[in-house]
Amino acid sequence: MPEPAERSGTSGASPSPAAGGPAAAGGYDDRVARVALTWLAEPGNRAVWALVQRYGAAPALDRLIEAEPADRRLRASVTARSTLADARRFAETALRRGEQLGARVVVPGDAEWPHRVDDLATLELNVSGQVNRDVRPPLCFWVRGGRPLGETLDRSVAIVGARASTEYGVHVATDLASALAGAGWTVVSGGAFGIDAAAHRGAIAADGRTVAVLACGVERPYPAGNAAMFERIAEQGLIVSEWPIGAEPLRHRFLIRNRVIAAATAGAVMVEAAARSGATQTMSRVLSLGRPAMVVPGPVTSAMSVGCHAVLRGNPYARLVTSADDVLEEVGRIGEYLAEWPRGPEHRRDSLDEEAALVLEAVPRRGSSTPEKLAAVAGLDVRTVLRRLSLLELSGLVIRADDGVRLPPKRR
Amino acid sequence: MPEPAERSGTSGASPSPAAGGPAAAGGYDDRVARVALTWLAEPGNRAVWALVQRYGAAPALDRLIEAEPADRRLRASVTARSTLADARRFAETALRRGEQLGARVVVPGDAEWPHRVDDLATLELNVSGQVNRDVRPPLCFWVRGGRPLGETLDRSVAIVGARASTEYGVHVATDLASALAGAGWTVVSGGAFGIDAAAHRGAIAADGRTVAVLACGVERPYPAGNAAMFERIAEQGLIVSEWPIGAEPLRHRFLIRNRVIAAATAGAVMVEAAARSGATQTMSRVLSLGRPAMVVPGPVTSAMSVGCHAVLRGNPYARLVTSADDVLEEVGRIGEYLAEWPRGPEHRRDSLDEEAALVLEAVPRRGSSTPEKLAAVAGLDVRTVLRRLSLLELSGLVIRADDGVRLPPKRR
Repeated sequence: MPEPAERSGTSGASPSPAAGGPAAAGGYDDRVARVALTWLAEPGNRAVWALVQRYGAAPALDRLIEAEPADRRLRASVTARSTLADARRFAETALRRGEQLGARVVVPGDAEWPHRVDDLATLELNVSGQVNRDVRPPLCFWVRGGRPLGETLDRSVAIVGARASTEYGVHVATDLASALAGAGWTVVSGGAFGIDAAAHRGAIAADGRTVAVLACGVERPYPAGNAAMFERIAEQGLIVSEWPIGAEPLRHRFLIRNRVIAAATAGAVMVEAAARSGATQTMSRVLSLGRPAMVVPGPVTSAMSVGCHAVLRGNPYARLVTSADDVLEEVGRIGEYLAEWPRGPEHRRDSLDEEAALVLEAVPRRGSSTPEKLAAVAGLDVRTVLRRLSLLELSGLVIRADDGVRLPPKRR
Repeated sequence: MPEPAERSGTSGASPSPAAGGPAAAGGYDDRVARVALTWLAEPGNRAVWALVQRYGAAPALDRLIEAEPADRRLRASVTARSTLADARRFAETALRRGEQLGARVVVPGDAEWPHRVDDLATLELNVSGQVNRDVRPPLCFWVRGGRPLGETLDRSVAIVGARASTEYGVHVATDLASALAGAGWTVVSGGAFGIDAAAHRGAIAADGRTVAVLACGVERPYPAGNAAMFERIAEQGLIVSEWPIGAEPLRHRFLIRNRVIAAATAGAVMVEAAARSGATQTMSRVLSLGRPAMVVPGPVTSAMSVGCHAVLRGNPYARLVTSADDVLEEVGRIGEYLAEWPRGPEHRRDSLDEEAALVLEAVPRRGSSTPEKLAAVAGLDVRTVLRRLSLLELSGLVIRADDGVRLPPKRR
């Protein structure tokens, strides 16, 4: 495990002979290439991620720079950005600037890479059941703060919720974060006002670890009103982003960012949320990943608890929690009762009606299928298949991908 | 269907030739006998109920009066009361007094008998998992109010909760009851302060039907502070009790009464409850009966929502509800989504771990077994069987009876 604390902001951005030379994964070229790729296309982009998986980051970047990509989706992903030739120059500049600002870049070859996020590799569901192109694992993380990223996230719980939180929500989020941080767990959240800020403040107050995952450059205090808090987080925990130094907090980036909050933690707690909020999307991803999706209830008279209650009503695998003890029970799998509780996909699979079970059985173990093929295999009409697929998707038992319907990745 | 409204208080208490003569079930003698039996032993008493099932009410009473019962449990059930010979005299006096007070007695032979309560016949679980002797179906109901009992309870929802409710709980219970009553559903509750009273008041305010199920005589306003409310309920709905005119609201009677609230309704909503409350016991019975057990969440900071959250956390078949619409969805089984949702015992059965499934499989379809026999059949040690039985019992998949472990009655 490297000690980034000793040379904060440089261990990642400098050439690292230990990583196997400049061209190897985790080396300088790899790092530059990954930063360049997140500049060329949004993090999580399917086409770019597939290219990196196939050739490695530096060769993938070369291919993108040297030849106009033949792949339609790939071309669509990168043409929104400046010329390809600028990409490498941009990345090198960003890495140098990051070094000056105390920000390092962490890539999959590094010892501090948070491996849990790689579970996103096969996750393709978004809230509305549409294919989401931007759910692939991160190519790299920009990190501010002295602690090693992976170790910090190892025992971590996300606390997510509304910006327009009520006093109740702020109180609960602060208390929860304090207690979890006090119990040695890292709190993870975004950088917004409301529940996010309350969670960080609670963890800071308990002298615990907290991680802010941003949708812009790690040097950028957004929202500005939380600037002082970000400085405290960088001292006591970590500020993390997939976007390079200088990147702006564009609106669509928050949804892309949410998948990291879901994937990097051992479980997530939703404290307050309006109907159909960003937090609901995060919980949807948590459920799809088979991680504990925990929800704090509130007064049914409060608009800021509507989203929480909707998640609890809409998904039998969302768990109501009322305290840090409840949360630790869920993420820690402590006690026999919990171990017995039917929760995994293998159990969900057994609790379906006959038609849904037939549809699920028709989905191939590897690869994907179409509703039409499923209908033929299951001996049902397509309309029935489509309806059952919605239910199966909601339960996280199937996912819909570009190429059709497939089984989700195995629960860890 | 008789029209009790026309001769309120007399149709049940008078001899009814239509019911097949004085000695037949539902006739005068049957009625007298049932009242006498609820005076000799508490309603729901297993031994007395078994005797009535075997011989009929009047012959059962004769046997009890003419011969000292040989059955030890039966003797234990009735010796706490005055001499057996007084029983018939007491019952006849009570029926006459009831008639004067506008209270009729409804028995299983009557057209207005609420048949749903007969589901209690095979229910033997209590909250702590101990055998409860007092869970058998009622022998009769005392009723004040003009509406026919069975029809009134046909589309009914129980609203239960704490006496020491908060403003939030009172607000929610009142609103829920108003909306349910406004939608044509009957509200059912006890007669206590707090949530009970709020539910009745909400239904009354909406000009709807409401039923108070008491643990004392129907002529007795207990608590006295709700006297005016009881009068309104008797006008607009029904006041119901298993106990004869003059019976006092002894403490243990409330728990006996709760099984009727659970069994007489299409589902129950718990609004606010402290940990381990009477309302929790009612919900436990509702779950055991396989009926919708609905719970209104509240602030996790409120002691009066602790019981609600505990039920939601402790049982995957308890359903969070936030509004009358949610409640109607549950009891009305409206919409496809719900119809698809895995909820019945047949689904629960499939979502067990292997050991629990083995234990459940070992329980005979008819009759009962012991943990020792189950261990032998399942190939597990007795300690494991006992632990799995607790889980199965909590899920309502098995019940523990005097004679051992058995399957619950089929869900209606």
